[in-house]
Amino acid sequence: MSGNTLGKIFCVTNFGESHGPAIGAVVDGCPPGLPLDEADIQAQLDRRRPGTSRHVTQRREPDQVEILSGVHQGLTTGTPIGLLIRNTDARSKDYSNIADTFRPGHADYTYTSKYGDRDPRGGGRSSARLTAPTVAAGAIARKWLATHHGVCIRGYMSQLGEIAIPFTSWDEVGKNPFYAPDAAIVPDLEAYMDQLRRDGDSIGARVEVVAEHLPAGWGEPLYDRLDADIAHAMMGLNAVKGVSIGAGFACVGQRGSEHGDEITPEGFIGNNAGGVLGGISTGQPITVSLAIKPTSSIRVERRSINRSGEPVQVQTLGRHDPCVGIRATPIAEALLAIVLMDHALRDRAQCGARQMAAQDG
Amino acid sequence: MSGNTLGKIFCVTNFGESHGPAIGAVVDGCPPGLPLDEADIQAQLDRRRPGTSRHVTQRREPDQVEILSGVHQGLTTGTPIGLLIRNTDARSKDYSNIADTFRPGHADYTYTSKYGDRDPRGGGRSSARLTAPTVAAGAIARKWLATHHGVCIRGYMSQLGEIAIPFTSWDEVGKNPFYAPDAAIVPDLEAYMDQLRRDGDSIGARVEVVAEHLPAGWGEPLYDRLDADIAHAMMGLNAVKGVSIGAGFACVGQRGSEHGDEITPEGFIGNNAGGVLGGISTGQPITVSLAIKPTSSIRVERRSINRSGEPVQVQTLGRHDPCVGIRATPIAEALLAIVLMDHALRDRAQCGARQMAAQDG
Amino acid sequence: MSGNTLGKIFCVTNFGESHGPAIGAVVDGCPPGLPLDEADIQAQLDRRRPGTSRHVTQRREPDQVEILSGVHQGLTTGTPIGLLIRNTDARSKDYSNIADTFRPGHADYTYTSKYGDRDPRGGGRSSARLTAPTVAAGAIARKWLATHHGVCIRGYMSQLGEIAIPFTSWDEVGKNPFYAPDAAIVPDLEAYMDQLRRDGDSIGARVEVVAEHLPAGWGEPLYDRLDADIAHAMMGLNAVKGVSIGAGFACVGQRGSEHGDEITPEGFIGNNAGGVLGGISTGQPITVSLAIKPTSSIRVERRSINRSGEPVQVQTLGRHDPCVGIRATPIAEALLAIVLMDHALRDRAQCGARQMAAQDG
Amino acid sequence: MSGNTLGKIFCVTNFGESHGPAIGAVVDGCPPGLPLDEADIQAQLDRRRPGTSRHVTQRREPDQVEILSGVHQGLTTGTPIGLLIRNTDARSKDYSNIADTFRPGHADYTYTSKYGDRDPRGGGRSSARLTAPTVAAGAIARKWLATHHGVCIRGYMSQLGEIAIPFTSWDEVGKNPFYAPDAAIVPDLEAYMDQLRRDGDSIGARVEVVAEHLPAGWGEPLYDRLDADIAHAMMGLNAVKGVSIGAGFACVGQRGSEHGDEITPEGFIGNNAGGVLGGISTGQPITVSLAIKPTSSIRVERRSINRSGEPVQVQTLGRHDPCVGIRATPIAEALLAIVLMDHALRDRAQCGARQMAAQDG
Repeated sequence: MSGNTLGKIFCVTNFGESHGPAIGAVVDGCPPGLPLDEADIQAQLDRRRPGTSRHVTQRREPDQVEILSGVHQGLTTGTPIGLLIRNTDARSKDYSNIADTFRPGHADYTYTSKYGDRDPRGGGRSSARLTAPTVAAGAIARKWLATHHGVCIRGYMSQLGEIAIPFTSWDEVGKNPFYAPDAAIVPDLEAYMDQLRRDGDSIGARVEVVAEHLPAGWGEPLYDRLDADIAHAMMGLNAVKGVSIGAGFACVGQRGSEHGDEITPEGFIGNNAGGVLGGISTGQPITVSLAIKPTSSIRVERRSINRSGEPVQVQTLGRHDPCVGIRATPIAEALLAIVLMDHALRDRAQCGARQMAAQDG
Repeated sequence: MSGNTLGKIFCVTNFGESHGPAIGAVVDGCPPGLPLDEADIQAQLDRRRPGTSRHVTQRREPDQVEILSGVHQGLTTGTPIGLLIRNTDARSKDYSNIADTFRPGHADYTYTSKYGDRDPRGGGRSSARLTAPTVAAGAIARKWLATHHGVCIRGYMSQLGEIAIPFTSWDEVGKNPFYAPDAAIVPDLEAYMDQLRRDGDSIGARVEVVAEHLPAGWGEPLYDRLDADIAHAMMGLNAVKGVSIGAGFACVGQRGSEHGDEITPEGFIGNNAGGVLGGISTGQPITVSLAIKPTSSIRVERRSINRSGEPVQVQTLGRHDPCVGIRATPIAEALLAIVLMDHALRDRAQCGARQMAAQDG
Repeated sequence: MSGNTLGKIFCVTNFGESHGPAIGAVVDGCPPGLPLDEADIQAQLDRRRPGTSRHVTQRREPDQVEILSGVHQGLTTGTPIGLLIRNTDARSKDYSNIADTFRPGHADYTYTSKYGDRDPRGGGRSSARLTAPTVAAGAIARKWLATHHGVCIRGYMSQLGEIAIPFTSWDEVGKNPFYAPDAAIVPDLEAYMDQLRRDGDSIGARVEVVAEHLPAGWGEPLYDRLDADIAHAMMGLNAVKGVSIGAGFACVGQRGSEHGDEITPEGFIGNNAGGVLGGISTGQPITVSLAIKPTSSIRVERRSINRSGEPVQVQTLGRHDPCVGIRATPIAEALLAIVLMDHALRDRAQCGARQMAAQDG
Repeated sequence: MSGNTLGKIFCVTNFGESHGPAIGAVVDGCPPGLPLDEADIQAQLDRRRPGTSRHVTQRREPDQVEILSGVHQGLTTGTPIGLLIRNTDARSKDYSNIADTFRPGHADYTYTSKYGDRDPRGGGRSSARLTAPTVAAGAIARKWLATHHGVCIRGYMSQLGEIAIPFTSWDEVGKNPFYAPDAAIVPDLEAYMDQLRRDGDSIGARVEVVAEHLPAGWGEPLYDRLDADIAHAMMGLNAVKGVSIGAGFACVGQRGSEHGDEITPEGFIGNNAGGVLGGISTGQPITVSLAIKPTSSIRVERRSINRSGEPVQVQTLGRHDPCVGIRATPIAEALLAIVLMDHALRDRAQCGARQMAAQDG
């Protein structure tokens, strides 16, 4: 029931606060026999890590993961995999002045409303830092999916503020700090970000995530449809305000004769469905779009109140991403991996006989 | 773990096929003492029912609900509430020709891929008819939320195909078959639908749902954020391809100085957040948008394959909504009610002491 | 999270009150392709039904089950199986005098304490009648286990009050109303029961349940061990006060050199383990013992209080089993079937690759 | 769904292997505002720790707990509490010879059957060492129950092999290494254990656990009855083969006129129910009995097989408890605390309005 656990068979339980002793996750339900070591996980954590370019927060955390359990002689054992990341670069003093203030756009007001109090250091539990354990757990899912089903999960930024980013090539995505799939637009993005930093402001972004080569048959309708669980995971990512699958909001203006993907003996024609029909994967690529709001921590002064209800002016100095969307790509990929692995195992539980029969036949 | 259960404390388990003996739900976790009778539920079912105007499917089901358990002397007892709706207007012969064909845009292909076979009568389990038990369960949640917290949940259609529908007044919504909040545009919508029917085609729609007067503090981060669970429920509704909260995808182009809702002693200024910050309710209205794809059952001929993989032409005659979005509003309201009630109870479990203290104080 | 759902992948959600319109269950997670019809379920319900001998309650309910969903053309479809049993022999007037009294040994006091009120008709939700949906769901699990794994589940009464019942033969169990595995002792049991009825009193019993031919490997430690989940299911059966596995409480007096079952190339020597080591099945028979308390409804007068806290004398007339243990055997078998099937599917989810490899090899 | 999580609202997720880097737990669902520091937890861990007398294993682990998250300024925050215990005294070489052998009475055979392989070091995941995180989590539950409801949880050993231990006084329990509630019998127990050690053998034990001062109303029938969840937790403890509540197996020989606890205006007369009726607490003490099998690791030679299926002789040298029951008392207390706290919160979710009304009234 835990609100801090993602997945029903492949279960990721996340713990930690931004400036407490450590953050981490327990991954329960990973099948035995998967080759796994810390380097597999570290590679993904390094993609998410802050401080890697001038366009993201300069907070520097090594984000070094330690596997505490569940792996023996380089293979998963089927028991829970404990993952630990120590917090090392806390600088609590940077945050001491905000303990009493509800920053606009942040979770300060709501955490205090719910729990009566909150850990204010670095955003505490609501910090984007808590996406690191998600990425670590996602690295396991990603490896299992690739090993057992050949699934490939990738993502890219498709829009930064008003700048639409054309899709040119997957090869470009890893070559710039924006996860942009087009080399020519990178100078524009850099100039845009530099101006934004000078303005002390922030901006939203749109990110696309794609999973390819998964089989038809994953998803558990009526309610735990594959797209529903993807929406749950993605909307649960900090700053996300919208999630869509396939044609997404464009389907509002489509006719049925245009939207419904035709089928031929060679396969589907088009993918308005985004790889999901009736909540179950079609075997086509899963395509997901995320709308990510602008960073709430900005230098521009904003009105707010303190815990006594008195008006205050809030201005956030210090190290912050002017566009949280820039680092969202690897996190969204990890979330998609976790959801897909969970559904792969759920499908195996209920429809495993079909799979076994298919494997035999 | 069941994929057919929505909610973790307020649990709605849905069963049934479109043309089987009956459909229904078991609602577990409703607190005792809520006044409830079949009329409370029937009123909501009647809003969803087909056959109420010429713009929706002419299939006529009375959709009469029977409460089987969990209510004694007009009050809920705290035990599971069994809800039964008999199927009466099956006409299985209408569907006999499609058992062997995978209709484009439908779940035929994916259900068959997953389960090895499917109940083809009227779409079987994947039929939109299965939203009726959801609406019935939502009626209970809606009443509880209104009684205990004064929460009001309403929705409307904001776009039909290319026609954007202005929001004029909540009063208009119930006066036309489109749930349109503007009287002047209704003739346009009717003409649009009539033309569509002549074309044998269908169209997408956009629906907005709003919950007002809920307290701050509902939602269970890290993963079961209130907005995440709303996205899960909404994306799990047939034909939904996109879900957004507050500013939604418009946030991509917003600056932080524009998006982050400022706070004054009188409350929040604006609601780009859509009533949720950090996954917890702010106390402002929850605002949700849905993109609903066009109906897949159309008269226009489409290419597909049969179970032997041979190409076939598919043309769907018979009774079908040319815009499934028209009847989506009461269903989306019901889903929102279920999610909110579930989180109200989850919050009471963990933070009940705060609530008790607040009530005392 | 629902307290009325048993199982995590094979999920049985139970609803209904003894004298409401109907009782039933929704069975979610049954794999597709299992041949199933109402007769499969009815056969098990008939074994549990009251009124079948003079030693059990004379209340006569046909307990006719109707399958509402999840089966198409004689095969399960993989979607939820709705099971409905109408209540027909209510005689609410028999119970009208107890609405205000807390009967000793009954759940009257606790239900009222928890929920503020209760449905008093026939015990309402706490009636043993609610074991019927469990038996119906168990019939499905039993058939699946037999079909897919050759698992055989049987039970018998091993003690009635002070009378220990020797195990002579499984063949005898079905030939007498006590589920006694020994023909010679049946006259003693009948005489004992007749005397008890004359005394207006009731008696406890001990029941054994055995599952044979399941494979090694089922069970999900650390906490959801196979024996732990069996204990949960069995202790959740009305009137059960003790559950043990294998040697059970006799292990307290055993030495390690006696208790630990040795292993030879031909298999285990002995079964003190009761088929479970470390929470995982060994492949030997699962052996479970239940202690069932005497029926609380007796003619002997007892002291109690009413809802105003005033002392009253309680004497229960009407139709009641003088030994609820007599009808417990088929219910305990059903519970064991549900737990085993749930773990078969859970194991398939996590360790399915091993199973597939084994099937291939 | 995770098999390594105990509880549905108060959720304890356990990870680790006996000789891996660390063991621990994530406790999710603890309400905010509970004063908590490491000393609260350490006090309970020290009660469970090996090496405290000559009658338990001489393996010495400091079992030092570190709180990683969920506590700020000495109060729980409502977010997950990460608990870490580093393994320090591994001595892996002691266990190297058993990696290939299935020790009788151990989980070696079943873990290998299930997962295809296992971590053999010190029993890996199936080691009793993994009860330490349970005890740590239980310390939190225990404190919350005491603070909010005045619940007191205690236990004692009532039988060691053939020696029945009379209950003389709670005061004695903490004064001897056996948790025996009688001073006079301690020399007998010591002599018994010394002889057992000379014999190289082990013995079973019986332990009682009692929770006092909880309110009526906890428990979630139909299936998640309070006693059912207690049975689940207790049978999930290593080496437990039987669990009973109240009169337990003695109820088999009781008549209804003897077993059913009468009620007077002053309260219940007797407690055959063990504090639970219909799966809901009565407000009387919860009384639980556990049968704990003899330690499987003994010097006496036993027959077994290795992974190739060849016969081997097994003799376990090294540090082992000759009676695992001796250290079971604090662990069983912790399990009871976790179950009770989970049900306290579950009851608050569903019946919180009753509690609020009661508090107001």
